[in-house]
Order: sequence, then C-alpha cells, then structure tokens
Amino acid sequence: MLQSLKFYGTSIDILDQTKLPQEERWIHCTTAKEVARCIVDMNVRGAPAIGAAAAYGIAIAAQERKHFNAEDFVKSMNEVLDQMSQTRPTAVNLFWAIERMRGILNLPLATEEFVRRLVDEAEAIAREDIVVNRKIGENGETLIPSDARILTHCNTGTLATVEYGTALGVIRSAFAKGKVSQVYADETRPYLQGARLTAFELQAEHIPVTIVTDSMAGYLMQQNMVDLVIVGADRVASNGDTANKIGTYSLAVLANAHRIPFYVAAPMSTIDWSMTTGEAIEIEQRSSEEVLTFGGQRVAPLGVDALHPAFDVTPHRLITAIITENGVIHRPNSEAMKQLVKA
Amino acid sequence: MLQSLKFYGTSIDILDQTKLPQEERWIHCTTAKEVARCIVDMNVRGAPAIGAAAAYGIAIAAQERKHFNAEDFVKSMNEVLDQMSQTRPTAVNLFWAIERMRGILNLPLATEEFVRRLVDEAEAIAREDIVVNRKIGENGETLIPSDARILTHCNTGTLATVEYGTALGVIRSAFAKGKVSQVYADETRPYLQGARLTAFELQAEHIPVTIVTDSMAGYLMQQNMVDLVIVGADRVASNGDTANKIGTYSLAVLANAHRIPFYVAAPMSTIDWSMTTGEAIEIEQRSSEEVLTFGGQRVAPLGVDALHPAFDVTPHRLITAIITENGVIHRPNSEAMKQLVKA
Repeated sequence: MLQSLKFYGTSIDILDQTKLPQEERWIHCTTAKEVARCIVDMNVRGAPAIGAAAAYGIAIAAQERKHFNAEDFVKSMNEVLDQMSQTRPTAVNLFWAIERMRGILNLPLATEEFVRRLVDEAEAIAREDIVVNRKIGENGETLIPSDARILTHCNTGTLATVEYGTALGVIRSAFAKGKVSQVYADETRPYLQGARLTAFELQAEHIPVTIVTDSMAGYLMQQNMVDLVIVGADRVASNGDTANKIGTYSLAVLANAHRIPFYVAAPMSTIDWSMTTGEAIEIEQRSSEEVLTFGGQRVAPLGVDALHPAFDVTPHRLITAIITENGVIHRPNSEAMKQLVKA
Repeated sequence: MLQSLKFYGTSIDILDQTKLPQEERWIHCTTAKEVARCIVDMNVRGAPAIGAAAAYGIAIAAQERKHFNAEDFVKSMNEVLDQMSQTRPTAVNLFWAIERMRGILNLPLATEEFVRRLVDEAEAIAREDIVVNRKIGENGETLIPSDARILTHCNTGTLATVEYGTALGVIRSAFAKGKVSQVYADETRPYLQGARLTAFELQAEHIPVTIVTDSMAGYLMQQNMVDLVIVGADRVASNGDTANKIGTYSLAVLANAHRIPFYVAAPMSTIDWSMTTGEAIEIEQRSSEEVLTFGGQRVAPLGVDALHPAFDVTPHRLITAIITENGVIHRPNSEAMKQLVKA
C-alpha cells in the first residue's frame, strides 16, 4: 500500500515526491536535519504529511540524544524544534506537530522517558492522521451528489498525509459509495502535484481521472462539466479563510461565478485559531527557478524572472463548506467555525 | 529584427516556435504541404501569423504549378486551399487569408497572371498585417493608464503575427509612451507560449516582464498587482464573444470579479461576422500528450488521460473593450460591433 513515510524509530524513509510517478525513490534520513531538508525541498509535501515528517524527525533526534543528561537533552531538542519550524512557513500542521512535541519537553522527565514519550507522540500524530482522514472522508462523502464530476487541485491524498488523504479522502469515500463518475485533476504548476501525484493515486484506486492544465478550470465549468470543486488546506484561519496551494483562490472565484459548490477538506490541526482572518497568513515565496525550469530543463529565456507564491488565501465567503473530522461547517465564518470546537 | 516568417517567392522559412527561446531553428518549406504541417504542429502559431503563413504556402504552391494550364492550375490550387483550411479550425484568420487567395482563383486569368497575383496577395496580407498591428497598438495605447501593471496570456507579439503584435503591440506602444511599469506573462500551459515567447519578445524590447504560472492570476489580482488584462483573439463573433487561447475565459472571469479592465486586441480579419455568438465557434481539441508532457518530458503516470481544448470562448459581457485597427469598441455587443464596419 502507498505510504509517504516509513518510521523505524531511529531513522525514517521519505518517499521522494519530486520524482514520482516516474521513479520510486526513498530518501533515508537518520537525522532531524535531513528530514528538515526533505521538507524544504518538497520531497515530502502536503500539510499533514509535513506535520508527521517533522514529528518523526524530532523523534529521530531524540534517539540520537538518548545519552544526554536531561537538561542538555531539552536544550538540544529545543534547538531541533526551532530548526524544524524554519522549514516552511505556511502549513500550520508543521507548527502544530512541533508544539505537541514541545509539550513533552516541558514536562519534568528523565532523558529515557523523554525519548520514549517523543517517539510515542510522533507515532500518535501519524496514527491519528489516518483516523482523522477516514472521518473527514465519511463526513465529506455526504456532500457529494451521485454521478459527481469533481475538480480538484494539487495533491491531497495519501502522499499529502499519512494515509487516505483529505480532499482526496472525500473523493475516495464518495467513490466507494459509487458516487464519482469523473475526477478532473488540475496539473498544478509549478510542481505538477496534480498531474504527477493525484493522477497516480487515483489511477491506483481505479477512480476515473483526467488531467487538465490549471488554465482549463473556467472552460470546464462553463461547459457544465464540473459539479463541485474540492481542495485541501495548508492553514485555515478562525473565520474559515483558507490558505492552500497557489491557484486555489482562482478556482474558488471561478466556482462562485458558475454557482458550483467549493469545498475545503482539512483536519482540525490545519485550523489556526490564533488567526482571525486569512490576511495575516504568511505566504511562502519559493524560488523563481521552480517556475522557469522543469526537470532541470530551462523553459524561459535567461535573465527573465518569475514570481512563485506557493499559496494563496481564499476568503471564507467563497467557501461552500469546510469539512473536518469534527463535522462540516457550511458557509464558514467566525461564528460558524466555533461549532467545531464545541463538537 | 525578430520575424516569424521569411518569404522567398518559391519557398518560405518558418521560425520554429516550439524550440524558442533555447534554439533558433528555421524550417525551410518548399511546398504548401510542408507549410500546412508547420501550422498543424504549431511551429508557427498565432492567428495572424497562421493567416500569413497559409497565404505564403499557397503562393509557393502557385509557383510550383506555374507550368499548368489555367484550368488545371485552378483545380489543383483549390485542392491546396482545401488542404490548408484543414490545418487548424479555430483561428479565423486562416480562413480569411485562404478566402482572399480563393478570390483570385475565381478570376478569369492566365496561369502566369494567377501566379503573379497570388504571390502579390500573399505579400499584401503580410504587409497589411504589419500596418494593422501598428494601428491596433496606437488605438489600444490610449486605454493604458500610466504606471500600468499588465497581465497578458499566451503570445500575441511579432511571433504571433507578421510583426509588432496585437495585444503585445498595444503593450509595446504603451511602453514607448512610458506607461508600462510591469508586464506579467502567464506561462500559458501546455505550450508555454508566455514563458517562452512573450518573455523572449518583451525582454528583447527591454519591457519589464515577470513570468507567472496560469494559476497565479487570481492571487495577483487579489493582491492588487494588476491594473488591466490584455489578450489577443483567434476568432471574434459578431457580438464580441471571443475565442482565444485556453485560460483566457478564466482570466476574464477573474478580472470581472476584481473589477479590472479586460481588453481584447485583434485585427478586423479576426472578426467572423458570420457567427452571431461565440457558442458556434469550433474549439480545437489537441492531443492529450501535449498536456501529459512538459518540455518533451512525460510528467503524468502512463495510462492517465488529459483534456486539451486549445481555446475557450469569453462572452462579450466580460470584455471591457475590443481594440481593432478600425477603432475601439467599448462594452462590445452585436450593436456596438457594427461601428467597426461603418468606420
């Protein structure tokens, strides 16, 4: 079965998502620094997968430091946590996972106990993600009509999580109930997560998938070929504003203009309750080389620059519903989002 | 100076736009069939350039048949015209150029005179395109505010025409008046005409250009980084509905949602007065391979399919103005468009 991460206690194997589907290459990491590098380089990507990878990286670092005295251990581990938190700024699951690990370091424990608890916590984060995704799939599936033709963006499947997926989990659940007739996967430039990863996962599940360029979404909607759009999230503000892969906002505007439902599927760990609106979400600006080249091959003329915001923010007014493991929030706003906490 | 086509009477050199900007490769064509192949394969693309290339191809065929008697000549040439008209269905300039050539074949001439007139007509089509583009540039420039930050799609410059360009001609004219502070060029998947060709042309003219992926348009508009959108056209219906490169319609919806002017620049030869609305425009469906590969490299898993509509249709209600050599039509519709004929 497809997996994005394999944890061995003192090391972790990361499936190199930059090489899929042409090549299945695993990166063997024995230090937190190597894991951090994989997160920066997007060998592992997708908010929940990043959170789990970071937790595993921290667990590896703990094993490495098991001969430290408790004081040195905590000091050194906090440095590891700080390093890990500097990998990618937008996906909040990273910080959520790091803070869960930090919570243990704040306890008055012996080193041996720290190590055991940190490893257990990393495994719990990963295990919980699977359960959470299944529940998101269940909750979201109820929103999908029969014979649904679904447009999705980027990759939100097993590769973006620990297993099953968020938006792709909803699609999988709906497909299992016989409701999905067609998935259109935006290729998702510049990394082509849709063309490479989503197509790969859906093909493996025998779910009908057709790749489109990001620029075809309007055409598909105009031609009445799409019944709904569903995407994942990298950070959701407490009013429902959602940061997700660049291009998501354009899709939301297009869906709104065509009166097509636009759904966001994300675990509770993606909600940043400290942010009242999405405007404050830091948008990672990645290297322009990623836009100007492909597979090491330059496409644009030398000397020409490119922009590369990795994410954009969709305001809550364009979101039909946010699907979490705690329930579905229709027409999300600050007030409606509070129901998730009560749940 | 940059040129897309070089005509030598009995042959034509076509700059291979699929190889730019990495390689300047010219394809030497000595038959109409070779020219038709270049049009199908998009070695030459852009509605006005296709029209001129087709006319040149027909002129070459005429030279080849100069020893035919008049009757055989006309019969054979009509077959050439039919062959040429089957290359690409959407851009109307192709058919417009072919019909100009056919008009000559309908005259009662001797073969020698046919040949001379057909060659002259092809040269006139090319020569007029340059004048027309300059005029479009002049007319459109008046719409551009100072310090304009302009988003454009695909390539509409010298490479898409005989010289100067349509939408890019407007940008060049406005830049010459010191009005352009920034051009954002959509990379324009799947052929990357924006990243490869538009960036190349603007760089050569020292016009500030930054490449963005097609998925970034919404983000740019949301961040108030774009003052206007300007695109070309492959066919404009008599009510102003406009077929243009896939992704244009999405841009128009986004511009409308952000109250940003959306302009179309096109020669009169792009207007198809026989079509009352854009719904009847045939949208060319190209090979899915062009979407599944990137720069010649396969990106998607084997066995997964893609859609590849090469164009979409933007309804006139989303178009702020259509810029032609005969004048500018604000808020185009069937009634307003008639002013162009009176002009």
